[in-house]
Amino acid sequence: MFSVTVRDHIMVAHSLSGETFGPAQRLHGATYVVDATFRRRYLGADGVVVDIGRAAEVLRAVLAELDYRNLDDEPAFAGMNTSTEALAKVIGDRLAERVRAGALGERTRALEALAITLHESHVAWAGYERAL
Amino acid sequence: MFSVTVRDHIMVAHSLSGETFGPAQRLHGATYVVDATFRRRYLGADGVVVDIGRAAEVLRAVLAELDYRNLDDEPAFAGMNTSTEALAKVIGDRLAERVRAGALGERTRALEALAITLHESHVAWAGYERAL
Amino acid sequence: MFSVTVRDHIMVAHSLSGETFGPAQRLHGATYVVDATFRRRYLGADGVVVDIGRAAEVLRAVLAELDYRNLDDEPAFAGMNTSTEALAKVIGDRLAERVRAGALGERTRALEALAITLHESHVAWAGYERAL
Amino acid sequence: MFSVTVRDHIMVAHSLSGETFGPAQRLHGATYVVDATFRRRYLGADGVVVDIGRAAEVLRAVLAELDYRNLDDEPAFAGMNTSTEALAKVIGDRLAERVRAGALGERTRALEALAITLHESHVAWAGYERAL
Amino acid sequence: MFSVTVRDHIMVAHSLSGETFGPAQRLHGATYVVDATFRRRYLGADGVVVDIGRAAEVLRAVLAELDYRNLDDEPAFAGMNTSTEALAKVIGDRLAERVRAGALGERTRALEALAITLHESHVAWAGYERAL
Amino acid sequence: MFSVTVRDHIMVAHSLSGETFGPAQRLHGATYVVDATFRRRYLGADGVVVDIGRAAEVLRAVLAELDYRNLDDEPAFAGMNTSTEALAKVIGDRLAERVRAGALGERTRALEALAITLHESHVAWAGYERAL
Repeated sequence: MFSVTVRDHIMVAHSLSGETFGPAQRLHGATYVVDATFRRRYLGADGVVVDIGRAAEVLRAVLAELDYRNLDDEPAFAGMNTSTEALAKVIGDRLAERVRAGALGERTRALEALAITLHESHVAWAGYERAL
Repeated sequence: MFSVTVRDHIMVAHSLSGETFGPAQRLHGATYVVDATFRRRYLGADGVVVDIGRAAEVLRAVLAELDYRNLDDEPAFAGMNTSTEALAKVIGDRLAERVRAGALGERTRALEALAITLHESHVAWAGYERAL
Repeated sequence: MFSVTVRDHIMVAHSLSGETFGPAQRLHGATYVVDATFRRRYLGADGVVVDIGRAAEVLRAVLAELDYRNLDDEPAFAGMNTSTEALAKVIGDRLAERVRAGALGERTRALEALAITLHESHVAWAGYERAL
Repeated sequence: MFSVTVRDHIMVAHSLSGETFGPAQRLHGATYVVDATFRRRYLGADGVVVDIGRAAEVLRAVLAELDYRNLDDEPAFAGMNTSTEALAKVIGDRLAERVRAGALGERTRALEALAITLHESHVAWAGYERAL
Repeated sequence: MFSVTVRDHIMVAHSLSGETFGPAQRLHGATYVVDATFRRRYLGADGVVVDIGRAAEVLRAVLAELDYRNLDDEPAFAGMNTSTEALAKVIGDRLAERVRAGALGERTRALEALAITLHESHVAWAGYERAL
Repeated sequence: MFSVTVRDHIMVAHSLSGETFGPAQRLHGATYVVDATFRRRYLGADGVVVDIGRAAEVLRAVLAELDYRNLDDEPAFAGMNTSTEALAKVIGDRLAERVRAGALGERTRALEALAITLHESHVAWAGYERAL
């Protein structure tokens, strides 16, 4: 099995609901360093999993919808806790949608899975993995 | 599949038995930077894999039993090589025991697996993964 | 010259005023991974620059006043841009004040300088250095 | 499941064929920081996955065949794109061959899988995983 | 003293002349992860050292002249060893020239120094620092 | 000013004397990831600060005297606390001695300073800098 990963980041504000979250119930923020991994069983004609330049562009396009925003004000997240793991799913699902729509070109048909990791600090990160 | 990882560290002395280990047969030491990853198929009501604050506390509690010690003097490790991979198992199993005993609360019933990585330097690390 | 550095982090929301900041004029957020470095010409009796445990506690105390907050709502920052470099100065000056007040004990008299680095992502960071 | 990883690196020149690669069609180069992970279900008598010193030596031997070279001039890569993911496979397969030939000793019989990661920069990396 | 650092990277081929360089006398390559640090005594009206977005753009512009190239073929480097430290100077001097030409705007008048670090692997890097 | 840095590591046991050190008064251990930086005002004929291969060898030679040892048993450290900052000085001074003795060759006459950083974990490190 092969994989290619590209890294980017977003800087967002949000608050989390529920006593579990302690001081994180207050409006605060995070830099999420985002790793997007594309998995594929065999390499294509060019010898690659995915065009890494296009992969980075598609990840940027997905992240641009979240970047420099207060997630508490985003209709898409109404009634939902934007925890690190939940955001990993949002990013993974939006990326999968673009991949299936052809954003990475013909060769994306062979992609099998997608994994997203969001690093919220040097001591904590969360991940989400799904089939494509 | 979702995951959440927290990072902490311990500083221990030990020696290793067997010609394989060369100079590491002498009493020496290591900083182990420890990553504990909790895996779960679906997010719970709060939108999280695990209460990350409690996860960090439980990891600290497990590590406190090893931290700033000479492992050669610990009865728990008598007759056993405390290699990086063996220590990863010790930490993973002790963490699993606490999780099953409810240290992470009700939501831990949905946790499926636990992965431990011990970084012993910038050029070597070992891991252990198990079901919960 | 000797130095000791401890690392911690904060997660804050804020917005920045001025066209320079582009999308960062919107309310957003950041994880700042904070490195505090203490400099000293000669080691003391114990052979250390500073009691590293106390240094970490004092840094935590300073960061706790900022952590999990919306800096736009903090009276201390009224009329000021909480840029990464400006925050580095706030943290450095507050830390210096505590050090001078004896928070690190007698040996802090020999400390000569303090440097603060705030990492806002894997591709950008800012620093502030001052005498003690 | 247990794993042990060792890290090394190579510095190579190469060019890539195909419009996909844009400016990377020109002769350029890369430092690949290479992580080799050995997986095994149970630890052996010494309590290890693999003799980590020998693992590092075998990885170095495989990498030495590529290091400080222009891959465009290597007969082994004629007619093949030496993309990061393709090189991960080359390194993984050559390492597997040496492991099967006994380079890691008797205990390698219990090794089940091998994973190679090539970091080409701080924002991109590729991997290849195979059974042993 | 304040500083702001931005990170980017280049991927180049080159060879080095002189027995000192051993196998690096052959045509090979490197990824250089490049950190550019801007230093300034006082913050300006916006509370920043430099417009970080423009700083990243100017760094990219300087790096684009080197990226994805064989430095042995560049007239600018004829008769010169493109060692990591020498490349740090080239990048620092070209960046300084653009800064002095106003690429970072009016506020660059207050910049005092520039430091460049080129990371060639996880175990080696080189730096160059100069006044502005 | 130019600099070149090489990284290596040691794994040692030790204990620290004095109430300041809390649990670190017990015999424990550490991995120290060691960065050695060589500074020089002008590059030499080959366009380098120092032969990086020889620099790495000399650093290894100095570290080999400490590696895989219990520092409490080393006569050289009798009556001295082997704190991270004190060890940075030991390594820096021993390295300086070898450099002055010609271990790095003729060009070392132009070296001006040496800086040593010892990373003891992902959240703490210490440094020592001296003239050559």
